[in-house]
Amino acid sequence: MNIYDVSEKAGVSIATVSRVINGSANVSSKTREKVLAVMEELGYTPNVFARGLGLNTMNTIGIMCADSSDPFLANAVYYLEQNLRKNGYDSFLCCTGYELSTKQNYLKLLLSKRVDAIILVGSNFLEAAKKDNQYMIDAANEVPVMLINGYLAHPNIYCTLCDDYQAVYDGTIRLIEAGYRRPLFLYCSRSYSALQKLSGFRDALSASGLPAPEESVCLCANDIAQTKELLCSLKGRGLVFDAVFGAEDSLAVGAVKYAREQGLRIPEEFAVVGYNNSMLAVCSEPELTSIDNHVETLSITTVSTLMRVLGGNDVPNKTTISNELVVRGTARL
Amino acid sequence: MNIYDVSEKAGVSIATVSRVINGSANVSSKTREKVLAVMEELGYTPNVFARGLGLNTMNTIGIMCADSSDPFLANAVYYLEQNLRKNGYDSFLCCTGYELSTKQNYLKLLLSKRVDAIILVGSNFLEAAKKDNQYMIDAANEVPVMLINGYLAHPNIYCTLCDDYQAVYDGTIRLIEAGYRRPLFLYCSRSYSALQKLSGFRDALSASGLPAPEESVCLCANDIAQTKELLCSLKGRGLVFDAVFGAEDSLAVGAVKYAREQGLRIPEEFAVVGYNNSMLAVCSEPELTSIDNHVETLSITTVSTLMRVLGGNDVPNKTTISNELVVRGTARL
Repeated sequence: MNIYDVSEKAGVSIATVSRVINGSANVSSKTREKVLAVMEELGYTPNVFARGLGLNTMNTIGIMCADSSDPFLANAVYYLEQNLRKNGYDSFLCCTGYELSTKQNYLKLLLSKRVDAIILVGSNFLEAAKKDNQYMIDAANEVPVMLINGYLAHPNIYCTLCDDYQAVYDGTIRLIEAGYRRPLFLYCSRSYSALQKLSGFRDALSASGLPAPEESVCLCANDIAQTKELLCSLKGRGLVFDAVFGAEDSLAVGAVKYAREQGLRIPEEFAVVGYNNSMLAVCSEPELTSIDNHVETLSITTVSTLMRVLGGNDVPNKTTISNELVVRGTARL
Repeated sequence: MNIYDVSEKAGVSIATVSRVINGSANVSSKTREKVLAVMEELGYTPNVFARGLGLNTMNTIGIMCADSSDPFLANAVYYLEQNLRKNGYDSFLCCTGYELSTKQNYLKLLLSKRVDAIILVGSNFLEAAKKDNQYMIDAANEVPVMLINGYLAHPNIYCTLCDDYQAVYDGTIRLIEAGYRRPLFLYCSRSYSALQKLSGFRDALSASGLPAPEESVCLCANDIAQTKELLCSLKGRGLVFDAVFGAEDSLAVGAVKYAREQGLRIPEEFAVVGYNNSMLAVCSEPELTSIDNHVETLSITTVSTLMRVLGGNDVPNKTTISNELVVRGTARL
């Protein structure tokens, strides 16, 4: 028995139910009566959910990320923490690793600590099998659940995404138009976000009338030296490519190291595009052309959406933020 | 009234008091009687501390770090989390920023969530004014407090440090012996760890009979582009230097960018040494010679020390881990 059942049976949004629970003036008396009648009929007592909406609140938000040593996730966590604090909220971060059971345990632990909401950072929280996402849905029946870079359609789950598909699609088109007709796409996980990027790359190849053989995309380890070695061995096996689009900046740096070792001139003979516009992009020589996924905007938007949810407002379940290609030395697009 | 008072009055260690509380066999009956007598005399009930020692434990450790987007701190947090989990402990991370009042509030929050111990990651938790460290001492009266890269002498505070002084001292001596007689030291904070590195550099200059003018050390922003600009302007003002020792890899990368812009050959005309041996070191071109402070060992040692403390063992308050110079292209030492 939870707020979702009440919302469904009364035919109103969760936010409306929460407004009724919190005695907000912003509900018609007809709606209020209907919701209260359903609550009585179902025997629903709103104590658990109510604490996420200002009653008996601890002003603490639980944040989960798979790996705090990933630069993108680390930056997102940093900006989330800063913006939550500006809004008077403390936060707890749990670094869960990539195992489903550990993610589930940590989510339970955070709920037991009576956090007001949960923020899941990174698309690796979405599992391939639908039933494996049930733990997020269960949590959403207790507190608002915010997803960064993942999308799950369910009441009380709010998603903020960067448009990874479009960013890679547009970037690949620009590579092709600049004359690089044999680009190679490197990625290092099968997360929601990585698969979006992959589709963007493939669709750009076909939209440009280029062949998209299986070898034009390659799953590899998230490691600079290993990426370099992989590219050397692909070339050794006769694969022809004149550009690399890396799903992460680290892969792009590996491609730069490959080109240097092969004596290829960057960007004249070989172009490289990265993703995340992280500190690695500026550290590389030449510096990386890279997609800026606006991690700060993503984090600020997530916090402001959450504040509106906790304030009892109706808020759209999905917000998409566009990305931007930052042009530097490795690809003059 | 706390376990520290009992320990002091009974003239035994905190670990011994905790063994008595937990009914450990590893205490002489004479000591046990003395401790119990003092507890009775002082009216001490061990409930708060006891939960940190296996009674009524939540198996949850609170971790605090200033900024999760700092690569060194992010890696430390990652390894801590992994090793705690192997030992059956969950962890909560709080990213506190650099304000004292926020650090104090987060520490209180973690204690209110009934964590079994606190791990403070990074030397920036040690304040210059002694009284500002009182909040850590107060916490240590409730649960074990682990400090990574900081040292505070107090019962129930356990410190694991890398020997930053020695690492920079040795590295600087090697630079000088390799013929770089005008090294410049760059640092970007006045943390305990940064000041240790600074002393190591200064002492190496005087041990080598070289002058150590004020301009041979320089406080700058933790930013690649700004570091490059700073070095250009120092050169413009007539400062002569043939090597840079950066207290962080990012500063060293800034020095590499400076040398490239000036057309200096690395390492023949200009040498660069970084610190942390982070991903930036491998990303740079040439790759950075850098001090590896063994963040994984540091984290594993901290967790194993904590496990022994929680098990009621007597454990030394300070463990120092030696560092290692990893030689790559920017300085052939």
